[in-house]
Amino acid sequence: MVATKLMIPGPVELDEEVLLALAKPLMGHRTPEFEEMLEDCWRLLRMVYRTRNEIALITGSGTAAMEAAVASVVEPGTRVLCIGGGKFGERLGEIARCFGAEVSMLEVEWGGSFAPEEVDEALSESGAEVVTLTHNETSTGVVHSAEAVGRAAREHDALFIADAITSVGGDVVETDGWGIDLCITGSQKCLAAPPGLGFVAVSERAWEWMQERKAKHAFYLDLLRYRKALKKRTTPFTPSVTLIYGLHAALRRIERETLEARIRRHRALAEATRRAAEAMGLSLLPSREHASNTVTAIRIPQGLSDDDIRGRLKREYGILVAGGQEKLKGRIFRIGHMGEVSARELLSLLACLEQVLRCSGFEVKPGTGTEAAREVLEAELGEALRACGGG
Amino acid sequence: MVATKLMIPGPVELDEEVLLALAKPLMGHRTPEFEEMLEDCWRLLRMVYRTRNEIALITGSGTAAMEAAVASVVEPGTRVLCIGGGKFGERLGEIARCFGAEVSMLEVEWGGSFAPEEVDEALSESGAEVVTLTHNETSTGVVHSAEAVGRAAREHDALFIADAITSVGGDVVETDGWGIDLCITGSQKCLAAPPGLGFVAVSERAWEWMQERKAKHAFYLDLLRYRKALKKRTTPFTPSVTLIYGLHAALRRIERETLEARIRRHRALAEATRRAAEAMGLSLLPSREHASNTVTAIRIPQGLSDDDIRGRLKREYGILVAGGQEKLKGRIFRIGHMGEVSARELLSLLACLEQVLRCSGFEVKPGTGTEAAREVLEAELGEALRACGGG
Repeated sequence: MVATKLMIPGPVELDEEVLLALAKPLMGHRTPEFEEMLEDCWRLLRMVYRTRNEIALITGSGTAAMEAAVASVVEPGTRVLCIGGGKFGERLGEIARCFGAEVSMLEVEWGGSFAPEEVDEALSESGAEVVTLTHNETSTGVVHSAEAVGRAAREHDALFIADAITSVGGDVVETDGWGIDLCITGSQKCLAAPPGLGFVAVSERAWEWMQERKAKHAFYLDLLRYRKALKKRTTPFTPSVTLIYGLHAALRRIERETLEARIRRHRALAEATRRAAEAMGLSLLPSREHASNTVTAIRIPQGLSDDDIRGRLKREYGILVAGGQEKLKGRIFRIGHMGEVSARELLSLLACLEQVLRCSGFEVKPGTGTEAAREVLEAELGEALRACGGG
Repeated sequence: MVATKLMIPGPVELDEEVLLALAKPLMGHRTPEFEEMLEDCWRLLRMVYRTRNEIALITGSGTAAMEAAVASVVEPGTRVLCIGGGKFGERLGEIARCFGAEVSMLEVEWGGSFAPEEVDEALSESGAEVVTLTHNETSTGVVHSAEAVGRAAREHDALFIADAITSVGGDVVETDGWGIDLCITGSQKCLAAPPGLGFVAVSERAWEWMQERKAKHAFYLDLLRYRKALKKRTTPFTPSVTLIYGLHAALRRIERETLEARIRRHRALAEATRRAAEAMGLSLLPSREHASNTVTAIRIPQGLSDDDIRGRLKREYGILVAGGQEKLKGRIFRIGHMGEVSARELLSLLACLEQVLRCSGFEVKPGTGTEAAREVLEAELGEALRACGGG
C-alpha cells in the first residue's frame, strides 16, 4: 500500500506537480525572478478570492492569518461581535479577547447556523464595530451565510472579518461581492498547496481603519507592514520560498481547472458524500441546507466508537478521516473532500467505510453508499466525472 | 549555467537530500508517524542548541520566533534592555515596544560590539528585568559575546533573550552553558533547512516567568500554547508538514557531519573569507575580534558602487551576495558562508569576485584571494578540506 490516504479537512494531499515544485533549488527571496513569481501568486489568489483587494501573504498557519486580521484592526475596548457555532468561529473571539476587545458572542449551536435577523439584532444590541465569522466551519461541517453577515455589517457600518480558510478555492466566496473587509484563507485546504501559508485579502476600508488605529500590539502579524511591502511587490519578512513554489504550482492548477469547474466538483463530491451517508443509514450533523461543500460531518452511530470507524479505516485500509473536536469528540467523524479529491477517491473511501461499518456491527449492504454517490456524481458532473481531479 | 548560486546569509541553498524530502506526500499532522518525526526533530534541535530545554517549533519566519519570545514574557511596563548594533538587535527593541515594554537601548555602533562592563552598567542603570541580544548580527557581520550577556543577566536576575538565528548550527552557541532563557533560531540559516520555521528554546525559569505574566497579547505566538502542546509531543497549530520533512532531513545531515566538524568548517570558511578579503586589499566592516563566523561584511571600496560588485557578480557569474541594509546600504556587501557551503563554493566566489573588482577598476591580481583562502582552509581543515560540504 502506498502512503496513507488523507481524507481529512486539510492539510490535503498535494498533486505531483506541486510536490515536485517544492524540490526546486531556492531562489534569492529579494530578486526580480522571485518577485515575478509572487506577483503571479497574487494575480491567481485574487482570482480564487474573487477580489480586487490586495492580499497579505503570511508565512504561518491559518491561525496566524486569523490573528493578523484581528490584531490589526482591534484596539483595547473595540466592540467585536463574534459569531460562534464551532471551534474556529469561537477561536476568532478568543483572539479578539487577547488584544483587549470587548467581545459579544452570538451563540450558535454546534452543527447549526443562524438566521440573518439574529446577526442584525446582535449588531444592534452590541453596537459592535467589527463582526467576525468562520464562513465554512470545519469542526462541524457547516457553511454559514457570509453574504447575510456582510449585508448586516454594511447596514451597521461594521468591519467584516471572515475566516474562509476552508472555503476559498472550493466553494463560492465572493470577497468583494459580499463585502468582506478582511478575508482569511490558508494554503493547505481547498487550494491544495502545502501547509504553512496564510492569506488575508484586505479592503480599502480596512486599510484606512488600521491606519487610524493607535494601539500597536503585533509586529510579525501587523498587516500594515505587509501593506508597506506590497507597495514594493514583496513581503516584509523572509517568506518561505519553498512554500511559495508549491503555492504557485497549486494555483496554476486551479487556473487550468477553472474556479467554476472546481467549485462544481467540490459541490458534487459533497452532495455525493451526503447522499451516500444517508443511503447507508448514517445521519449528518448539520441540517442539509447548512451542510458544507468541502467537509462532511457525520454522526457516529449509536453503539459504535470513534475507533470502530476511524481506527479501522486507518488500520485496515490506510485511509485517514478526521474525528470530532472538543465537545464533538467521539460523536462525529469528518470526511474532507477538498482540494484535489476526485470521484475515484470518494468512491474508494465509501467502499471501505461500508466495510468497516459492517465489521463493527452496523448493518449496511455493500454498494449502498458507492451507488448513491455515483448517481449524484454522474448527474452533476457527467462527462467531467471521470476527468475530475485527474490533472 | 544552473540556478543562481546563493551566497547570501540565508535562505541558504539546500542539499539534494533536503530538496527531495520536501517532495514527499504529506502525512496526517496528528498521527503517530508524524509525531515520531517531530520527536526526532526535537532531539536533533536540542543537540545543535546544546540544551536540555524544550523547544517551541513555530511555522513562520525568524521574526515570528523573535516575536514569540518577546511577546510571551513582556507585559506593559516591563523594563527591557535591548542591545543594539544592527538591524536585528534593534528589531528586538521594536518588538518589545509593540507590546508595551519600557525599552532602554544599549547603543552599539553598527559594525562594533560592546564590553561586558557596558552591559553590566546598563542593567544596573535601567533596572531591566529582561535583556535582549542578537548574538550573530547578520546586518553587520558581527558576533557578540552572548556568554558575557548571560553572565550579566544572571547577576542582575534578568531574563535573557538571545536571537541566535544565524549562529545556531554554524557557530558555538551554548544555550544552557551561557544561561540563555529564550534562545531563538530559524530554519533557513546555518541549519540549511527550507525557510518558514522558527524555534525558541525555553528555560524552566522562562516558563515560570510566563506563567506569572498576566497580560495576554498574543495567540498564535504565545509560547505557553506551544508548551501545552509539547506535553503531548505535538504543535498547537497545524505545522507545515512539508517544512518539517525538510528540517528533519537537514538536521540528520548535521548529525552525520557532527556539530563540532560543522562549526570547524564554518570557522575555517569565515577565516578564509576574511584573509582573502584582506589579501585583495578590501577591508572588513567589523574588527577581526568581533567578526562573525557565518557571514562576512566587507566595505565597498572607495569609487566602486554596490552594482559594480553585487550587480556584476549576479549578471556575469550568477552569484548572489547580500548588500548592506538600512544605514549600511551601498556601503558594504555581505558574503554568507553558512549551511552547506564548501571550499569549492568559497573559492569559486572569490575567483569571480577578483574578476569583478578588476573589471570595475579596483586593482587586484587574480589568484590573490583564492590563494589566501586556500592556505587557511588547508591549515584549518587539512584532509577534511576536500570532503567538506561534499555530502
